[in-house]
Amino acid sequence: MGACQSFREMCDREKNTNVHLSLPAVCIVWQTAMIILFGVFMRYDHESDAHWVEHRKHSNLTDIENDFYFRYPSFQDVHVMIFVGFGFLMTFLKRYSFGGVGFNFLIAAFGLQWALLMQGWFHWLDADGKIRIGIENLINADFCVAGCLIAYGALLGKVSPVQLMVLTLFGITLFAVEEFIIISVIHARDAGGSMVIHTFGGYYGLSVSWMLYRPNLHQSSRLQGSVYHSDVFAMIGTLFLWMFWPSFNSAICDHGDGQHRAAINTYLCLASTVLTTVAISSLFQKHGKLDMVHIQNSTLAGGVAAGTAAEFMLMPYGCLIVGFCCGIISTLGYIFLTPFMEKHLKIQDTCGIHNLHAMPGVVGGIVGAITAASASIEVYGHEGLVNTFDFMDKFKDMVPTTQGGHQAAGLCVALCFGIGGGIIVGAILRLPIWGDPADDNCFDDETYWEVPEEEEMSPTFICRGFVLFSYQTNDAVIAFCCSRLYCIQSPLDGSTAQFWDYSHILM
Amino acid sequence: MGACQSFREMCDREKNTNVHLSLPAVCIVWQTAMIILFGVFMRYDHESDAHWVEHRKHSNLTDIENDFYFRYPSFQDVHVMIFVGFGFLMTFLKRYSFGGVGFNFLIAAFGLQWALLMQGWFHWLDADGKIRIGIENLINADFCVAGCLIAYGALLGKVSPVQLMVLTLFGITLFAVEEFIIISVIHARDAGGSMVIHTFGGYYGLSVSWMLYRPNLHQSSRLQGSVYHSDVFAMIGTLFLWMFWPSFNSAICDHGDGQHRAAINTYLCLASTVLTTVAISSLFQKHGKLDMVHIQNSTLAGGVAAGTAAEFMLMPYGCLIVGFCCGIISTLGYIFLTPFMEKHLKIQDTCGIHNLHAMPGVVGGIVGAITAASASIEVYGHEGLVNTFDFMDKFKDMVPTTQGGHQAAGLCVALCFGIGGGIIVGAILRLPIWGDPADDNCFDDETYWEVPEEEEMSPTFICRGFVLFSYQTNDAVIAFCCSRLYCIQSPLDGSTAQFWDYSHILM
Amino acid sequence: MGACQSFREMCDREKNTNVHLSLPAVCIVWQTAMIILFGVFMRYDHESDAHWVEHRKHSNLTDIENDFYFRYPSFQDVHVMIFVGFGFLMTFLKRYSFGGVGFNFLIAAFGLQWALLMQGWFHWLDADGKIRIGIENLINADFCVAGCLIAYGALLGKVSPVQLMVLTLFGITLFAVEEFIIISVIHARDAGGSMVIHTFGGYYGLSVSWMLYRPNLHQSSRLQGSVYHSDVFAMIGTLFLWMFWPSFNSAICDHGDGQHRAAINTYLCLASTVLTTVAISSLFQKHGKLDMVHIQNSTLAGGVAAGTAAEFMLMPYGCLIVGFCCGIISTLGYIFLTPFMEKHLKIQDTCGIHNLHAMPGVVGGIVGAITAASASIEVYGHEGLVNTFDFMDKFKDMVPTTQGGHQAAGLCVALCFGIGGGIIVGAILRLPIWGDPADDNCFDDETYWEVPEEEEMSPTFICRGFVLFSYQTNDAVIAFCCSRLYCIQSPLDGSTAQFWDYSHILM
Repeated sequence: MGACQSFREMCDREKNTNVHLSLPAVCIVWQTAMIILFGVFMRYDHESDAHWVEHRKHSNLTDIENDFYFRYPSFQDVHVMIFVGFGFLMTFLKRYSFGGVGFNFLIAAFGLQWALLMQGWFHWLDADGKIRIGIENLINADFCVAGCLIAYGALLGKVSPVQLMVLTLFGITLFAVEEFIIISVIHARDAGGSMVIHTFGGYYGLSVSWMLYRPNLHQSSRLQGSVYHSDVFAMIGTLFLWMFWPSFNSAICDHGDGQHRAAINTYLCLASTVLTTVAISSLFQKHGKLDMVHIQNSTLAGGVAAGTAAEFMLMPYGCLIVGFCCGIISTLGYIFLTPFMEKHLKIQDTCGIHNLHAMPGVVGGIVGAITAASASIEVYGHEGLVNTFDFMDKFKDMVPTTQGGHQAAGLCVALCFGIGGGIIVGAILRLPIWGDPADDNCFDDETYWEVPEEEEMSPTFICRGFVLFSYQTNDAVIAFCCSRLYCIQSPLDGSTAQFWDYSHILM
Repeated sequence: MGACQSFREMCDREKNTNVHLSLPAVCIVWQTAMIILFGVFMRYDHESDAHWVEHRKHSNLTDIENDFYFRYPSFQDVHVMIFVGFGFLMTFLKRYSFGGVGFNFLIAAFGLQWALLMQGWFHWLDADGKIRIGIENLINADFCVAGCLIAYGALLGKVSPVQLMVLTLFGITLFAVEEFIIISVIHARDAGGSMVIHTFGGYYGLSVSWMLYRPNLHQSSRLQGSVYHSDVFAMIGTLFLWMFWPSFNSAICDHGDGQHRAAINTYLCLASTVLTTVAISSLFQKHGKLDMVHIQNSTLAGGVAAGTAAEFMLMPYGCLIVGFCCGIISTLGYIFLTPFMEKHLKIQDTCGIHNLHAMPGVVGGIVGAITAASASIEVYGHEGLVNTFDFMDKFKDMVPTTQGGHQAAGLCVALCFGIGGGIIVGAILRLPIWGDPADDNCFDDETYWEVPEEEEMSPTFICRGFVLFSYQTNDAVIAFCCSRLYCIQSPLDGSTAQFWDYSHILM
Repeated sequence: MGACQSFREMCDREKNTNVHLSLPAVCIVWQTAMIILFGVFMRYDHESDAHWVEHRKHSNLTDIENDFYFRYPSFQDVHVMIFVGFGFLMTFLKRYSFGGVGFNFLIAAFGLQWALLMQGWFHWLDADGKIRIGIENLINADFCVAGCLIAYGALLGKVSPVQLMVLTLFGITLFAVEEFIIISVIHARDAGGSMVIHTFGGYYGLSVSWMLYRPNLHQSSRLQGSVYHSDVFAMIGTLFLWMFWPSFNSAICDHGDGQHRAAINTYLCLASTVLTTVAISSLFQKHGKLDMVHIQNSTLAGGVAAGTAAEFMLMPYGCLIVGFCCGIISTLGYIFLTPFMEKHLKIQDTCGIHNLHAMPGVVGGIVGAITAASASIEVYGHEGLVNTFDFMDKFKDMVPTTQGGHQAAGLCVALCFGIGGGIIVGAILRLPIWGDPADDNCFDDETYWEVPEEEEMSPTFICRGFVLFSYQTNDAVIAFCCSRLYCIQSPLDGSTAQFWDYSHILM
């Protein structure tokens, strides 16, 4: 679209979105740093090391008791959620599908390397100063990345890839510290990460978005919706997230009943959410029509809220109740809260992560605290209680009610890290050096991607006055107006465009 | 499309498709009922309960022998088939992709809860009146839902979401009774559900469709095809169904060789089906061109037919033969039977479930009966025979030939329940209270979904006389005709539309 | 598009693309041959046979130690890569998505049957002349098919389905021989198939493409690009390949640490590749914009290169380095090498398999040789070394340095088979009997598929002189020109089309 591009480029002159040097530089520098740090710190753990054969015989284990076979299927499901789930959920915008799925891919691939290091330093450091990795580390790294991808949801379409890399670097760092405090220091349990992942990630993204508020975002409102097929693409993301959420919440649970119960609980929670989401969506729309935004997002809220308590004896009916409430809260959030936040709180939340992750995450934290506080030996059995809540070592004297308090404390930590961290990182991202798009260029893949030229005739977006439609051939844009036929030849080599008026042949 | 919508709404006045109150009411009432019933009946089984640690030590098991690790990977594959497989297979219509994947989501999420209860009451009720659930129940619930989703395939585009909820409620109920009779009373084996799921679901849907026959469905024939990209979306569904069918047929088989053999058998059956589907599709089309409808559907018939005999010693070549035949039958069904049934039997079968599920299901039942009847100790080994056919307890004196008869009886039960149940439920669904669409509004997402407005220029569907195309700006629809340029300003707030003729500027 | 079709058909008369008889004949004949050969040779192995119950007790195994539970999750991931991964990766062309995903489906389903036989004869033949199959055979068959699908990538859009069947038949045959020589004779290790699958498949496809060089391919250059949504479809393929590549490389590794380590190594390799791909893509484009072709393909190069060494102690930092290099090499390949090869070497490589498979495959082979040669007892432990490199039986005296040499020899064999086999098969495929498309009909689904008629108005591709656009109603094509309005009524029953000029009403 030679002519259109020239026009756009002129508009862009005010704001430099050229990441020609900064993006490659950041990628190469950070990847090189990863190689060096991995060389210094990263080794295989004894289940993935070639010494396993000896270790296995020594510990009298069979091959199938390698942790790989307990967790690899769940890991792959989580992996699908991170890359296809989150990625395709963000393809719903009519002209930002490349950015949605592509940048998600980029920052997840970078983030997981940094997460392996950060989490390794906090949780997996051996006596010899090496991090020993196995399948559980890969799952945890994917979890850690999820927090940053959630934050990306709020910023979708409004930031440059370089900003996203910075957002991810700091996000992962904050996540690892926050996780260490919540899990190891406070000894809160959070198998599916309602607090650690969703509450943190949600408020982190919202705070950054608040710092990056764009008062003139309406200038790109023409691109802020979906088209029919982009909504279908987004459903791929929704469904893979929905289906695999039981794996997400059970992936790092205890072997045996822990993983088993977490999967069942999450499955039930999610089923219930779908029904109430549909109910509320239909109730608040004209003629009872369903809104795809709700179906794509709010149906997942139950999985978020089941995170903390997934491993607990939440009971099947308890799961349904949690899902019931979350579907309602989340859908009402899309209808009332998101517009309110944009208008009055200056928080622009592209994907509505407040309704999908932040609020349900808080609900999940509260549900977790209540469930923990009300745990009893009758329900869990003595060994089951110790096992589920890890009442061992220095926490061996802990009782459920105290655990409930610790859970609540964990939720507060997640909130503080999310909001505080987001404000600081947001301030950094406001620096005018990151190549972010102008207000009228948001939600547009043209800014950072080579977008294929559509041969199909389409009404030109720069339609001023009389242009009805234009279409493009190899070397020309033909503009057909109410009363005129223009031909604009805009050579691909960048030389000066020429212009003819062929209107006489119309008459 | 302000103006278009007004026009549509006028047409719709004859038939009230407004589900503004009924859909939310049904969702909320039924979800509440589920919560109460789950509260009364549903508990964790001893492999997902926190008491597992004690149970495990007592039974001298290791964690990896928890049923979770035998079945969870298969469960997740089945889950993908239900939500992405069936869902995306039904996105092939040009303007009913939302309804295809969205309503599939809704009724599956509702259905699996009801299935857990119904199947629990029949199969898993403990002495204390509680249903104990574990991973196998989740798989069975997904199976149960599959029957209703198959039925939905025949009705795609012609029913309201409320009708679908009713269809599902009764479908699940009938399924559970039918399954109980076939599996527990008659003692037929049906690991992959050729009879229980596909034959039942297929004829259930066809009978309902027969009861809901629409003589004037041709009025929406303009929407009854696919577009290029909707066909590609449908291939997502096809491929996930095709790939994961070995998991479907092996998910609830015996541990060890049962699951192993079922997966191999199904894999071979499906491979063979693809070749004959392509052959027949090419043979009966002008110029040997392939038809996407066949590739999307008939390639799956082998998986259906492998269901009953999946666990048996069908032998690799036997699988190829079954697949060979099913590809031919199913494709011929699409070419000859579907038009015949619509014209002469008044059965309108949108997705052709008769060719994909009903017929191959019957074939599968027959293959199962033959394979069972011809089982021998030479092939199975004594223990293998007992194990495969469950010749235990009150059936310990059964022999393969008798088993063959029982299999055939099971097939008849599935047929009766499908046809009988479908006629009754169809009669209920004919009541004029469910908000189903008018004949000229079928296959159109506009009826039940907020559909994004396309900014792209498109020929208006209400094209009468001279309108060549129309397109829409923020506040106006511009209609360009052969000799005239109209501008229709149709404010979003619902106030009266205005109309100008700007044709003079064309001259 | 009655009128358009007539026009096309006229053009096609020069080249007969009618596969009306040849395609069904090939499918039926080959599938029948498969049934006969399976009947003669194929049986269940002792883990999938009903005798397992007895075998298990005899060998003192538990059900969970059936190989099924070690490999089935990986198998399903590989299966997804073959059908959805490769299939959707090839949907990127604007008008060849049906052919991309559909023919991929066809040849994979055929190829895996032939692969089970060929690999069975070479590797799994029992004393009684029967092939015993289990889950590992299914994985190997999928691997074998992958080689041919890679070759298809080079030929995408330029060959007929019959040619593809022939390509696959010979490809699988060559693969099985080559694999036998490399793995069994030379005793090279190649868990993820960098040499056996990717190097072979890549050069096989390129050689065939060289033999089928089309000097006038530019005649269909209008179809040789993507459109916005076809690029998003291709991302489905990319992501499923990327996510499941750890399963691909670990699927047939040793139980325990072998599978565990292979998965970790591949995961790290792939993460690193994404970053350098983005860096190079951005660096070499105007304005630093990313190119979807690179993101879709080069991000996968790391998985290819990790294949041979996946099971070795490559060390986490080693993986990152391999991925780092491959991202750079592969992306530079797309930018410089592919155009060079097309212009100067007469190799037309539609999907750029040289950059995605061939080159990274060679890199993987070299990395494997170096890693093997530098293996030591300190790193692997004595038992680990024997276990990882299979220094058993007649190879029990082998040392790592020799193994390195054997690895290098394996790479040469793969190259020779790829290039030599490709030239021979290419010569066969040049025979004018296979129904391949004319130069101006390449990359067009119309040739072999019933393509749904688009109701949307689209600029006619046969635009000559004055036709601006055409669109279609039920029984007419309306062509609107600069100065004329034509109506061409082209009845569906094939009777003579009529033509009116309504231009007078425009005036």
